[in-house]
Amino acid sequence: MATKTNGAKPSWEEAAREKRDAILASLPREYLIPEPLPSPEEQRDVTGAYAHQFLTAREIEITETDAVGIVAKTTTGDWSAIEVTKAFIHRACMAHQLLGCLHETDFPAALATAASLDAHFAEHKKPIGPLHGLPVSLKDQCHMKGLDTTMGYVGWIGTHEGDSSSPLHKNFDSVIVGELRRQGAVLYCKTAVPATLMAGETVNNIVGWVRNPKNRLVSCGGSSGGEGALVAFKGSPGGFGTDIGGSVRIPCAFNGLYGLRPSNGRLPYEGMANSMDGQNTILSVVGPIAGTLASARLLAKAVIDSEPWWEDPLVHEIPWREEQADAVRRQGKLVFGVMRDDGMVRLTPPMRRGLEAAVEAVKKAGHEVIEWEVPEECAHKHLFQIAMETWAMDGGDDVIKAFGLSGEPPMPHFLLDLSATPNPQMPASAIAALNVRKRRIQKAYMDFWSSTTSLTSTNRPVDALLTAPCPHPAALENRFPFTMYTTFANVLDYAAAIVPTGVVVDPALDAPEDGLRWRSDMEQRVHEKAFDPEIQKGAPVTVQVVGRRLQEERVLAISEIVDEALKKAALS
Amino acid sequence: MATKTNGAKPSWEEAAREKRDAILASLPREYLIPEPLPSPEEQRDVTGAYAHQFLTAREIEITETDAVGIVAKTTTGDWSAIEVTKAFIHRACMAHQLLGCLHETDFPAALATAASLDAHFAEHKKPIGPLHGLPVSLKDQCHMKGLDTTMGYVGWIGTHEGDSSSPLHKNFDSVIVGELRRQGAVLYCKTAVPATLMAGETVNNIVGWVRNPKNRLVSCGGSSGGEGALVAFKGSPGGFGTDIGGSVRIPCAFNGLYGLRPSNGRLPYEGMANSMDGQNTILSVVGPIAGTLASARLLAKAVIDSEPWWEDPLVHEIPWREEQADAVRRQGKLVFGVMRDDGMVRLTPPMRRGLEAAVEAVKKAGHEVIEWEVPEECAHKHLFQIAMETWAMDGGDDVIKAFGLSGEPPMPHFLLDLSATPNPQMPASAIAALNVRKRRIQKAYMDFWSSTTSLTSTNRPVDALLTAPCPHPAALENRFPFTMYTTFANVLDYAAAIVPTGVVVDPALDAPEDGLRWRSDMEQRVHEKAFDPEIQKGAPVTVQVVGRRLQEERVLAISEIVDEALKKAALS
Repeated sequence: MATKTNGAKPSWEEAAREKRDAILASLPREYLIPEPLPSPEEQRDVTGAYAHQFLTAREIEITETDAVGIVAKTTTGDWSAIEVTKAFIHRACMAHQLLGCLHETDFPAALATAASLDAHFAEHKKPIGPLHGLPVSLKDQCHMKGLDTTMGYVGWIGTHEGDSSSPLHKNFDSVIVGELRRQGAVLYCKTAVPATLMAGETVNNIVGWVRNPKNRLVSCGGSSGGEGALVAFKGSPGGFGTDIGGSVRIPCAFNGLYGLRPSNGRLPYEGMANSMDGQNTILSVVGPIAGTLASARLLAKAVIDSEPWWEDPLVHEIPWREEQADAVRRQGKLVFGVMRDDGMVRLTPPMRRGLEAAVEAVKKAGHEVIEWEVPEECAHKHLFQIAMETWAMDGGDDVIKAFGLSGEPPMPHFLLDLSATPNPQMPASAIAALNVRKRRIQKAYMDFWSSTTSLTSTNRPVDALLTAPCPHPAALENRFPFTMYTTFANVLDYAAAIVPTGVVVDPALDAPEDGLRWRSDMEQRVHEKAFDPEIQKGAPVTVQVVGRRLQEERVLAISEIVDEALKKAALS
Repeated sequence: MATKTNGAKPSWEEAAREKRDAILASLPREYLIPEPLPSPEEQRDVTGAYAHQFLTAREIEITETDAVGIVAKTTTGDWSAIEVTKAFIHRACMAHQLLGCLHETDFPAALATAASLDAHFAEHKKPIGPLHGLPVSLKDQCHMKGLDTTMGYVGWIGTHEGDSSSPLHKNFDSVIVGELRRQGAVLYCKTAVPATLMAGETVNNIVGWVRNPKNRLVSCGGSSGGEGALVAFKGSPGGFGTDIGGSVRIPCAFNGLYGLRPSNGRLPYEGMANSMDGQNTILSVVGPIAGTLASARLLAKAVIDSEPWWEDPLVHEIPWREEQADAVRRQGKLVFGVMRDDGMVRLTPPMRRGLEAAVEAVKKAGHEVIEWEVPEECAHKHLFQIAMETWAMDGGDDVIKAFGLSGEPPMPHFLLDLSATPNPQMPASAIAALNVRKRRIQKAYMDFWSSTTSLTSTNRPVDALLTAPCPHPAALENRFPFTMYTTFANVLDYAAAIVPTGVVVDPALDAPEDGLRWRSDMEQRVHEKAFDPEIQKGAPVTVQVVGRRLQEERVLAISEIVDEALKKAALS
């Protein structure tokens, strides 16, 4: 319940409203869509034609060019960083009005950066780095000089992670922020997250429930949901989210975007805010989200090329290995495993259609597909158990304290059980036993994957696994129950990418199924509560491409092959 | 106290004696030194001339060739694997008689392996791998088919890690064991460890207190102490230990050997027994111990070349990077930091002499040396605190249970506080806070190291840190109190190597210092209880070369330069 205060300290409602108003007030008036705005029911899809009416042809040209296309212009002087930045600021402002996807903006600083990049180019006739002049959006876990980091907690407003006396407040850049700046990126906003970060939707007491630009009745996903909404609306050519259970991939899935969950130790997390920081059984990772696969790769590669292992003590010294991508491209026939069912929750009809489209496309392109049938010791229900125990390790201590700073109530959307205050904590020996179980299943899964050599015609193990990122399409509000189609890769620490299939939810093709025998309450809940083709109509369907640990370059190269195969199949 | 049993189950004393006798009984009679053996007081140093009297000239030639020299002969057919294996078995048997350094032997299997390697060579005229025919010893944490793994616990005898019904008992190879076999190594024995592994000496209720071959009145170090004793006696050309706080480096230091503590994720730990398995704040790592630096590198490289990332889910895909070693060699002037005092415990006189010898040698070779003065936030006392809290995380739960299996009493030599049964366990949120503290000091230390660019004449940061591995020489019995000269590198996850300096303890040069003002009880204890030049006389003094995280190739190349400089200085 709300905290009543008398005296100087505002109530959490007042603090949240003030912050919400400040975000809106930071949007230049000339970039706002004139009131009244259409309701989500009146205007579900606000991308494409709806958005275009408020933009100039030049702004449309710029914002509908992908990150690779943009840097091709900005690193050669064809486009100025200022013009590109202004166009994305305009579109980002519209995105926030329509979707509620921003937590922080610093447009004056972004324009100053852009101006200095242009001046640099004018003087030296060369870019300062591979991202010269590219606007890049960041999830609101990144600390940026001059900006708050609320991570959706009212109690963090105006503080450093809840500490109102910390000299760090607004005073430093997370490592990835500094590296993006050095590579020439223009940082202009931070995007919305669900408080706790433990949700497949994006909702908090500051900006509310963030909507999907393709269909505003459904969720933009979470926890990097503001990032997903902004990029899908083309208010950003690409940015970075984080993923501890699917938080990069779910927003990509729900918004029809490309993204990568790298393994631990490739991209720098150092200096970012987090939930349950220090839990090191399953580590959250940073990954790119973009409108094209090449753009996602550009972002990941630019950060790795900046050699983050000299600035983040948990990043491994593994340079970008384009030769591994080349080896994949030269390989000819690939073999995919397809996981149509994780043994816990079957896919809803549109997700099945999407996965089938990917399977058919790669087969048509000459690749092999085998069924992914894991032995009992690798069953995904065991991975599920490990993830659930890990997330509940501290009994909610961290997030309960964070909510408690302001007295704001937690939302029901979170995947953590916050009913008891707090639940018991796991002691050291139980955590150690959990870590051993996790390592053993990582080993068993590794050995199983290697053993698929006996099932392929290539005398190699399966090259990548194809599966859905989620059993249902973009979530209905407060109806996202099950993350395991993404989370299994977090437990295993596998590299995993998202590729749109071109399939969208279509009530005519995607009738809910009657008469199935549900294997669990969870399965029933997914099919009966989380799937409604009438409401989810038009929501994009994507496929997940999962590779082995630290195989980011290979996974992106394989995803490229899947993407091309899907595009080719759609044309024929 | 001992468990009294009546009925089938023997008392712990009986079980220990039976195992001790079985180890002795496995040594071929013709390889044993005739009784009576000299007492340690009568014959402190059993290397060199003392050992030679029981060996043939050919056995001496073989066992005094380093691993690199041996594989040069065995991979070309000059020496047979059988002859080499027999020579090392002979010398290993003598080592065990004199020092008590073996836990397990499987000489018949080793000879069969050697015979099959010779047959392979005879048929194909080429070796099966870079270690073809090389005997390699392993710390008794490695599981090997056909052998027990007791890790010094009486309760583990005849079981799989204390589980008497496990089908895994004697039934599988740890990943590194399989890789060594595939590279052609001949595995013939497993070496002694202190029960718990948490000790700088090697002692357990099975083999007792393991002695140093250069001076049997002092310790062989721990926890990879059996390995250190065996290699220093030349009963093995090299092998693998593990290191969570110095357990590879301390035996190298006390026995005057070369060794490497790699960072996490280079060498495979998968499938090995451990203490407090699943504690993942500071991970134990596997590292080589050998009589020459080139041999230590050969062993590490052979394992990495076997691509352990396909078999161990925690190993990173980082191939052996000889180009990084070459870059160091081409670099010309290196800059060393020298840490003469860690701020907690000053070095005893011989360790100061050893460090000074290394500093003078590298200066004479044209390199630069700067004082290593860390800022307060990186102070080693903070690293100490983190290590102590990590090791005490489970309140002794794991080791108390392991001792409890047989009822054997723990020894006083262990660095864990086993006085209460058990101490309180750390809850999840406290562990998370500890992990955050650890990461922050890793970051601060990284930034400090990078900042040394401003102190060097090379416009690069310091290339490596020189320091002692321990404040005192080879430990007196039950007098090893302080590990932080090695453990700081475990907390930071830095690569670190040991290089002998040629200095040995000399009572004439190394008088204990009077009148110093001790900064702590620990410092006083080290100087007054752990240092006695009369008893430690002749004990070797080494230097530690510490590099940054995952810089194994660079650290070995720099160590080579230090080693050559020391050898050159000794000649002049």
